[in-house]
Amino acid sequence: MKNILIVGLGAVGTVFATFLKEYGHRVYAVVKDKSKYSCNSLKVDGIWGEHTAVLNGITDNTQEIKNINFDLIIVAVKSFDTENAVKTIKELVKENTIVILTQNGYGNYETAIKYLPKEKVLLGRVIFGSKINKPCYATITVNADDVRIGHPENLTEEKKVIETVCTIKHSGIPATYSKDIYKILWDKILYNSALNPLGAILKKRYGELAENPYTREIMNNIIKEIFDVCRLNDIQLNFSSADEYIEFFYTKLIPPTKDHYPSMYYDLLSGKRTETDALNGAIVKLGEKVGYTPKVNKTIVNIVKALEI
Amino acid sequence: MKNILIVGLGAVGTVFATFLKEYGHRVYAVVKDKSKYSCNSLKVDGIWGEHTAVLNGITDNTQEIKNINFDLIIVAVKSFDTENAVKTIKELVKENTIVILTQNGYGNYETAIKYLPKEKVLLGRVIFGSKINKPCYATITVNADDVRIGHPENLTEEKKVIETVCTIKHSGIPATYSKDIYKILWDKILYNSALNPLGAILKKRYGELAENPYTREIMNNIIKEIFDVCRLNDIQLNFSSADEYIEFFYTKLIPPTKDHYPSMYYDLLSGKRTETDALNGAIVKLGEKVGYTPKVNKTIVNIVKALEI
Repeated sequence: MKNILIVGLGAVGTVFATFLKEYGHRVYAVVKDKSKYSCNSLKVDGIWGEHTAVLNGITDNTQEIKNINFDLIIVAVKSFDTENAVKTIKELVKENTIVILTQNGYGNYETAIKYLPKEKVLLGRVIFGSKINKPCYATITVNADDVRIGHPENLTEEKKVIETVCTIKHSGIPATYSKDIYKILWDKILYNSALNPLGAILKKRYGELAENPYTREIMNNIIKEIFDVCRLNDIQLNFSSADEYIEFFYTKLIPPTKDHYPSMYYDLLSGKRTETDALNGAIVKLGEKVGYTPKVNKTIVNIVKALEI
Repeated sequence: MKNILIVGLGAVGTVFATFLKEYGHRVYAVVKDKSKYSCNSLKVDGIWGEHTAVLNGITDNTQEIKNINFDLIIVAVKSFDTENAVKTIKELVKENTIVILTQNGYGNYETAIKYLPKEKVLLGRVIFGSKINKPCYATITVNADDVRIGHPENLTEEKKVIETVCTIKHSGIPATYSKDIYKILWDKILYNSALNPLGAILKKRYGELAENPYTREIMNNIIKEIFDVCRLNDIQLNFSSADEYIEFFYTKLIPPTKDHYPSMYYDLLSGKRTETDALNGAIVKLGEKVGYTPKVNKTIVNIVKALEI
């Protein structure tokens, strides 16, 4: 059994913590404010059944767990908290520790390796849908695909990656090793960047956005700009052209999720900060870095930020 | 005394009709649906006092007034109805008739001269604020400047323009002859294009849009694109650069109107079609005509149109 640390007990962190602990690992969690987690046990329900677990410890002070030798640290905070989270766990990363970043968007790996050795940082693309009902209690609503795990530059010993994937998989969370994790993450960035901000701004479902000719034009332009930005930055995508992706987007990706509102919609509704900086905002930064301003993405980011305040 | 026809009895048309009739002219009105105007008399109140008038006729069928020799026709419909309105009055425009278009935005003159002789079509920049309380009853809330009237290419005999301006002025509506009417209209297009759609999308007042750094950036980009579009189309503006206008916009234009919501905001709230096609939408068309897509304006137009449906 392994020593595992979960950073952040949101909708994703609660699922990882509960399943891994229930399987038998020693699981700890770091949160921002421990006083919100007075619950004795974590609970997860939904499409994968009912699960409960009492963690070995929940803390908001890493000094309390600094002597534990963690095999695995799963960072499950929002993308805008990645840098803080990585700074927090820096001293906990030992010789044998593997870190998985599960956040949305672009820039999480790039931020993490400013503080941690590259080969210790894996990326996980999480695409099951879960929501937090109250602290310690999450519901899993949908699973679009396995959690994909890999190293963006394939710098981690393969055996070690596969072992990590197995740890997660055996706990009951479908997971797969991926040698193409970067491309796979970019698939999600494309999808989320096209749909999330518009759904949040206009309060519309994915299907409505796809049907309306005006939002369709905006989404197409967002996608085209992302392809331009990636080409200028030598970032490889799973699709050879924007048009190829756009076709796939409307025919394969939207239909099964057409009734969904994006998480960003709920974020704005409840006055929370959105992950726009890691999605369209990251596209703008990547573009501007090479002298190209993706104006549609920039306008959309500005509107979301104006609504955040 | 003159024969005058008002096309459209909205917030602007009702004011013109009432003042001109009260002064003693023979005033008729064409509306879309006569049955909505069962009122005996028009009424206007607000900053210019109380005024009432019984028009010589309100009709939705120009056949009924085709034998009247109109000296002046004031078109006061929304910009998206300009083409229909002009087609409707085409047969009423005689040798001595002068037409004034009072609509917002770009493209009204260009549309009108497809059907009417150029030299008969004057433009009027209306910048008093009035709202329609119910059919036949309007309130004037603010007057930013005289109604400016002129021919965009100065093709109408000056004497005739001045006579028309005097007709309006004597009736009690402040009006001035302008040799630069096109530039003056563009001032209003700049102002409205920057503020109206964003205020409508975000439900924010002019002052809030100017204070928020994100909406400020969008507005600056909208303005810069308009200057680009005008330069590429050889359209002369009153300002030598976007920066000069931007400075004037924030320091002089916004402060006195900071508590206003744009009319487009009320249009969207009440499920009405907006005038976006004559503002940012016209900018997009003018740009695309010369091979340049103003992407910020286009994105904003698409969002407004998605909200209209």
